[in-house]
Amino acid sequence: MSFILVSEVGPRDGLQSIKRIMPLEAKKRWIAAEAAAGVREIEVGSFVPPSLLPQMADTAELVAFARTIPNLRVVALVPNAKGAARAVEAGVHGMSIPFSMSESHSLRNVRKGHPAMLAEIAAAARIARAGGVHFAVGLSTAFGCTIEGAVPEDRVVRLAEAAVAAGAEELSLSDTTGYADPAQVRRLVRRVRAAVGAERLTTLHLHNTRGLGLANVVAGLEEGITTFDASLGGLGGCPFAPGASGNLVTEDLVLMLNAMGLKTGIDLEKLIAVRTILKEAMPDEPLYGFTPEAGPMRDYHQRIAA
Amino acid sequence: MSFILVSEVGPRDGLQSIKRIMPLEAKKRWIAAEAAAGVREIEVGSFVPPSLLPQMADTAELVAFARTIPNLRVVALVPNAKGAARAVEAGVHGMSIPFSMSESHSLRNVRKGHPAMLAEIAAAARIARAGGVHFAVGLSTAFGCTIEGAVPEDRVVRLAEAAVAAGAEELSLSDTTGYADPAQVRRLVRRVRAAVGAERLTTLHLHNTRGLGLANVVAGLEEGITTFDASLGGLGGCPFAPGASGNLVTEDLVLMLNAMGLKTGIDLEKLIAVRTILKEAMPDEPLYGFTPEAGPMRDYHQRIAA
Repeated sequence: MSFILVSEVGPRDGLQSIKRIMPLEAKKRWIAAEAAAGVREIEVGSFVPPSLLPQMADTAELVAFARTIPNLRVVALVPNAKGAARAVEAGVHGMSIPFSMSESHSLRNVRKGHPAMLAEIAAAARIARAGGVHFAVGLSTAFGCTIEGAVPEDRVVRLAEAAVAAGAEELSLSDTTGYADPAQVRRLVRRVRAAVGAERLTTLHLHNTRGLGLANVVAGLEEGITTFDASLGGLGGCPFAPGASGNLVTEDLVLMLNAMGLKTGIDLEKLIAVRTILKEAMPDEPLYGFTPEAGPMRDYHQRIAA
Repeated sequence: MSFILVSEVGPRDGLQSIKRIMPLEAKKRWIAAEAAAGVREIEVGSFVPPSLLPQMADTAELVAFARTIPNLRVVALVPNAKGAARAVEAGVHGMSIPFSMSESHSLRNVRKGHPAMLAEIAAAARIARAGGVHFAVGLSTAFGCTIEGAVPEDRVVRLAEAAVAAGAEELSLSDTTGYADPAQVRRLVRRVRAAVGAERLTTLHLHNTRGLGLANVVAGLEEGITTFDASLGGLGGCPFAPGASGNLVTEDLVLMLNAMGLKTGIDLEKLIAVRTILKEAMPDEPLYGFTPEAGPMRDYHQRIAA
């Protein structure tokens, strides 16, 4: 039975997309409850300047809290070397820096082109290494960009190699825009792994904007990917339509993986119950997901025991 | 480039699940517009007694109409031998009879156990053969049943063989309950194909109750499945939650297949425009799907040309 790591990114990727600030105590309850449901890795926040993202101002406190939970890997996003220093100081197990494969997207988001970002990655990597913290680079817009459209695969492969040369211990491929299709996932995972080594690419960060999220997970599984990011309740999904969530819904992902007989270590019923914490803390924020509404299949427990 | 047949089942599986009766003229517009968008096969209705399903009372007229559309394969569902005779008379290209792998489900739905259903299948097959009409058997609840729970794979294999012995030219596996997971799809397709021959099992009828519909399509593609049923706008979905549709949404399926570089012959933009006909004819009926809301990816046309 293969172990698949479901990495909860809701406290970072979910919350950063919504306006309402979730109180620190509610965030702690959320993180503790997910860990109690069996989630082994949580991205608890982002070390961005609090003036830019007030929602993430308490990330250091969350890291300190999450580090007290046994068997939980605590990770955070960092936008740059300054953030990396704060992440080391806070005591994360791992940090991840986004590196947009679309230069237009990178310029618009962090006002840095590819050479400047690679220099930032190198500086952040040095800080992480000195602090003994695992350092990953998330190759964002790897499957396409809302500004540039198609992102050439050759470019992703070249920038993946450059990120490793700059100090990335690990990479992830991130479908920031919900553009990925299953054939592309298989192709790109294979190409990047061939370039940098399979052990350096084990994670996919997929979105569900066009409903292809879990289909892309299946494609990733076929290629040997073992870590998938997801957000509880699809929190932070694009609000333009009911069901048109941005983030992959953790509950649906866990249902699928567990039902397939893969081992996530996560108790689905306990995970679904964690939604109550989000609903209570942010009653107006829509939550997504099919599984919480339909419930697991009647023979779910037989499947996972099989 | 492989051709994948997307079989539109909305006029049957979508409409039979909703109370409001769609006028004959609107159904005709729907069928004509989908065919004009490139859909090559449509299940236009069901030959059940009109007293049971008034929504399907005009199926013979729809068959006659649909037969006038070039390059469209016109199929209908039949519950029994009597329906098969009406389908032959109406002039369908093909008919399909549902055969529930769960005997409890079969007894509850058509008041027939497995031996009685196999006799009915044999009688319907004779009528189809005599009429020169292609005859398929849909193995429903093949992935699990809301009454019985797990449906043993050995039983599905055995009943698949029995259906072929009774005269099925072709089988499909139907996830009536939205229970299928991708690992199960691969396993069951492989086992049934090994038992009855790959050429007899080329179709999957999947539901999206737990959000796994397209993930299961990917699993089916990996096993060489070449026909997938779907319903425009996920029409007829379970109404308990927005987005928690029963039927696979044709628009999302076509986006995925086309983006993967598979050939469906379907123009996605034209297909999405067909929703207007449903909205005008049944303004209160919810339509589902991610693609119609999010739109295709910016580089969609490059993908399908690739």
